[in-house]
Amino acid sequence: MDYSNFYAIAVGVGTKNSADAWLEVFYPAPLFKPNAEEAKALAEALGYEGGNVAIDLTDATVASLADVTMDERQLEVLNLLADSKRPRVMTLLASDAPITSTPEAYLKLHLLSLRHVRPNEQNLDNIFAALPNVVWTNRGAIDPSEIVDRQLEARLAGESLEVTGVDKFPHMLNYVVPSGVRVAYSSRVRLGAYLGEGTTVMHEGFINFNAGAIGPNMVEGRISQGVIVDSGSDLGGASSTMGTLSGGGEIVLSVGKDCLIGANAGTGIPLGDRCTIEAGLYITASTRVQVLDENRQLVKTVKARELAGQSDMLFIRNSESGQVECRTNTKAIQLNEKLHAHN
Amino acid sequence: MDYSNFYAIAVGVGTKNSADAWLEVFYPAPLFKPNAEEAKALAEALGYEGGNVAIDLTDATVASLADVTMDERQLEVLNLLADSKRPRVMTLLASDAPITSTPEAYLKLHLLSLRHVRPNEQNLDNIFAALPNVVWTNRGAIDPSEIVDRQLEARLAGESLEVTGVDKFPHMLNYVVPSGVRVAYSSRVRLGAYLGEGTTVMHEGFINFNAGAIGPNMVEGRISQGVIVDSGSDLGGASSTMGTLSGGGEIVLSVGKDCLIGANAGTGIPLGDRCTIEAGLYITASTRVQVLDENRQLVKTVKARELAGQSDMLFIRNSESGQVECRTNTKAIQLNEKLHAHN
Amino acid sequence: MDYSNFYAIAVGVGTKNSADAWLEVFYPAPLFKPNAEEAKALAEALGYEGGNVAIDLTDATVASLADVTMDERQLEVLNLLADSKRPRVMTLLASDAPITSTPEAYLKLHLLSLRHVRPNEQNLDNIFAALPNVVWTNRGAIDPSEIVDRQLEARLAGESLEVTGVDKFPHMLNYVVPSGVRVAYSSRVRLGAYLGEGTTVMHEGFINFNAGAIGPNMVEGRISQGVIVDSGSDLGGASSTMGTLSGGGEIVLSVGKDCLIGANAGTGIPLGDRCTIEAGLYITASTRVQVLDENRQLVKTVKARELAGQSDMLFIRNSESGQVECRTNTKAIQLNEKLHAHN
Repeated sequence: MDYSNFYAIAVGVGTKNSADAWLEVFYPAPLFKPNAEEAKALAEALGYEGGNVAIDLTDATVASLADVTMDERQLEVLNLLADSKRPRVMTLLASDAPITSTPEAYLKLHLLSLRHVRPNEQNLDNIFAALPNVVWTNRGAIDPSEIVDRQLEARLAGESLEVTGVDKFPHMLNYVVPSGVRVAYSSRVRLGAYLGEGTTVMHEGFINFNAGAIGPNMVEGRISQGVIVDSGSDLGGASSTMGTLSGGGEIVLSVGKDCLIGANAGTGIPLGDRCTIEAGLYITASTRVQVLDENRQLVKTVKARELAGQSDMLFIRNSESGQVECRTNTKAIQLNEKLHAHN
Repeated sequence: MDYSNFYAIAVGVGTKNSADAWLEVFYPAPLFKPNAEEAKALAEALGYEGGNVAIDLTDATVASLADVTMDERQLEVLNLLADSKRPRVMTLLASDAPITSTPEAYLKLHLLSLRHVRPNEQNLDNIFAALPNVVWTNRGAIDPSEIVDRQLEARLAGESLEVTGVDKFPHMLNYVVPSGVRVAYSSRVRLGAYLGEGTTVMHEGFINFNAGAIGPNMVEGRISQGVIVDSGSDLGGASSTMGTLSGGGEIVLSVGKDCLIGANAGTGIPLGDRCTIEAGLYITASTRVQVLDENRQLVKTVKARELAGQSDMLFIRNSESGQVECRTNTKAIQLNEKLHAHN
Repeated sequence: MDYSNFYAIAVGVGTKNSADAWLEVFYPAPLFKPNAEEAKALAEALGYEGGNVAIDLTDATVASLADVTMDERQLEVLNLLADSKRPRVMTLLASDAPITSTPEAYLKLHLLSLRHVRPNEQNLDNIFAALPNVVWTNRGAIDPSEIVDRQLEARLAGESLEVTGVDKFPHMLNYVVPSGVRVAYSSRVRLGAYLGEGTTVMHEGFINFNAGAIGPNMVEGRISQGVIVDSGSDLGGASSTMGTLSGGGEIVLSVGKDCLIGANAGTGIPLGDRCTIEAGLYITASTRVQVLDENRQLVKTVKARELAGQSDMLFIRNSESGQVECRTNTKAIQLNEKLHAHN
């Protein structure tokens, strides 16, 4: 077997329901595009026969893996895993194919949050089907069919069973705490979010899985699935990037460098660099926009989607005419050339 | 006594403060409109004399109830309760009258979240007075007057006492986890919310008590007290349904089937079926709206409140004129007939 | 030494990282502008030599403090602290100077939330540098560099380590639970927020440090750092007060008495008393506003910043012209006089 292009290998520890199905998996140190020798050693220790698979581990197989690994961190993790009574798994992804199991889905989400891959760089097909709905509690993951009795038992025992959510995706910070970030509240960032160094997610910020901020960024608005915000851009409080999962169109959005989307504003089109949308203004793809040059003269009227991806745009709603305008931002001439070229 | 129209009976377990007053009650399996025989048996076992009352239970009375119940689930719950050291209560509501006690208030909130009744179908008069303000912590409910010392004691003991809120209403998921729903974060849904099968409440969604989504629905906006959202409708991120408790008018809002309220949009009027409000647009009752027919010709100008409850409306703010327009949605002619008929 | 103008003294208990640096400090009962004799007694017991300092305490020094205090509550706290194994500290602030240490920063934040000082009354210079970034968990504060191993250890032991955030500021309610308030969810109010009696912070409300509501207030929107909302004013759901830390201008905002900022609305200018901004409208400092008199006649057109701080203003966007208008509110003539005088 060829291990030179292996996608990822990771040993994890997780939770199963009473029917022995995985609810979630935590991977402390996944190997992304692993060294071929290491991949071969780990795979062969488990009798791996190819493809993308998740293999449940026993005390014995954990020991075999510890015997063959050449990676110090893996050895450390395997030694710790050796003593655990929790369900353990090794997930081997020969290639970046559609997802076929819960452990695979969790591994791919980890790869994003651990910054091994950026949003939209990975095949996440089938992820919703592969992720079970889970009741997240202060006592771990619980299957929805088992929660009612667990709650009653905890109550009667005088214990506190706090349910934090019922969702397919857990909070990122319970799995990955990236370096150099601040996240005011963990419930606002799903596992699978990409937070580059220097990203601050304030209380009203939100980052979905397969979405992210390259950093540094101040995120007080919502970054929808598939959306990437580049360095130096700020999303104002409760600002919105239109998603494609529900309600939005088919354009995958992105926000370039050094943009500002004002508080309570939003965009339904991708933005280039140095763009600003004033507070409270929502630009949808079909908003008709008056494009003005540096002398505030009308260049043309276009639907916003025709401005998709351009840089140096300042969007406001003229408060005397009610018209949505796109004014040149700091670098007027460059912008206007682009806009005219676009005719 | 006549038990044939009994409203509800439920046995619960809860928390009292140091003055022996109820802070909260959890009812694992309330009987709504119970079988008359079962009601009679339970009531008589406690010497019930009529009306809406909450009777504290002892080991002895729990045993008597277990002796007489004919309901398997009640028996199961009572057997579990028999061993508990926590305060136990049986709440008997002969009729749907104004609320007179904390256990009654909690029971009615359970009935909503357990889908026994829909929002606005129950008498909730006096609920704010009947619900004490509670400090919600990872160690249960605590009286506000007792929290400071509890926090200090926990600190000094090296224990963690996490306060999650100070509110009259708890998080629904700590009491009821309805089937077939997703709730990204528990703090956004109060006990007393109604979540039908297939409801997803995303991170920015919110559902108050006595408010709800019939399901299936994607809720990324806020459903205010008294508001019902019908099946197939989506509330975009941070969208708003205007409430009547504060700031709003007296019209109780509802959103019909298959509507879309865009991200950061809002409505101050009830909507019929298949209505859309574009992202970022807030329709208040007094917004003056240009009603356009299928040829985009002006039919008339009205205040939005005159369009309350109509179907097939698409609201946008014309980005060239600044005017708020109501265009016919998918079923133009039907709409226009209705609108004209309204003249 | 002169103790007659001492700023604050407080004994606290907190958390240190493995390098013996403070992560956070809880002060159960700070003395603000303490009695000179009490200040002198406590300071001298620790050999205090002046300035603003934080002195780590030992069992012996805790005992010395208990010996000299003349304040009953301090004695109570010191007696409790005597038995604790947690790191203890006494922070002495001779004056309200820029912040030089973590314990100082935490003390000043406590003074705000305990209502000893109002926002903008205290020198908070250097606070960001003095506050370490902390991983907040259900097992207390953890240094970001130590979290990965802690998470793995907890997992393997089958324990639950829930990360609630990574931030320089903790949730206020874990330190201070002010009397007479409701806070639907603790993550939305930072330590250092000022919540006057009668303040309700709903699920979508947010109050930053050094910001606050005088009370009574209904807060369903965001109060940015430095902003004060006066009594009787309501912030509608997801409404915004523009901050000065990022994205906003240099005007420090305030909202006067009995104002209403509608849902999804916002302000970039300070408002006087009895002002209303309609739902969905964002007033920025540079919004051009048509000022109308009580007969709806145009008085003048101004940038909103020229209306900063005025009372009795009603802001709407005319839904027929798209123009932003400032109409006289309830007290028309008074307003118009002010506005005319402003010419």
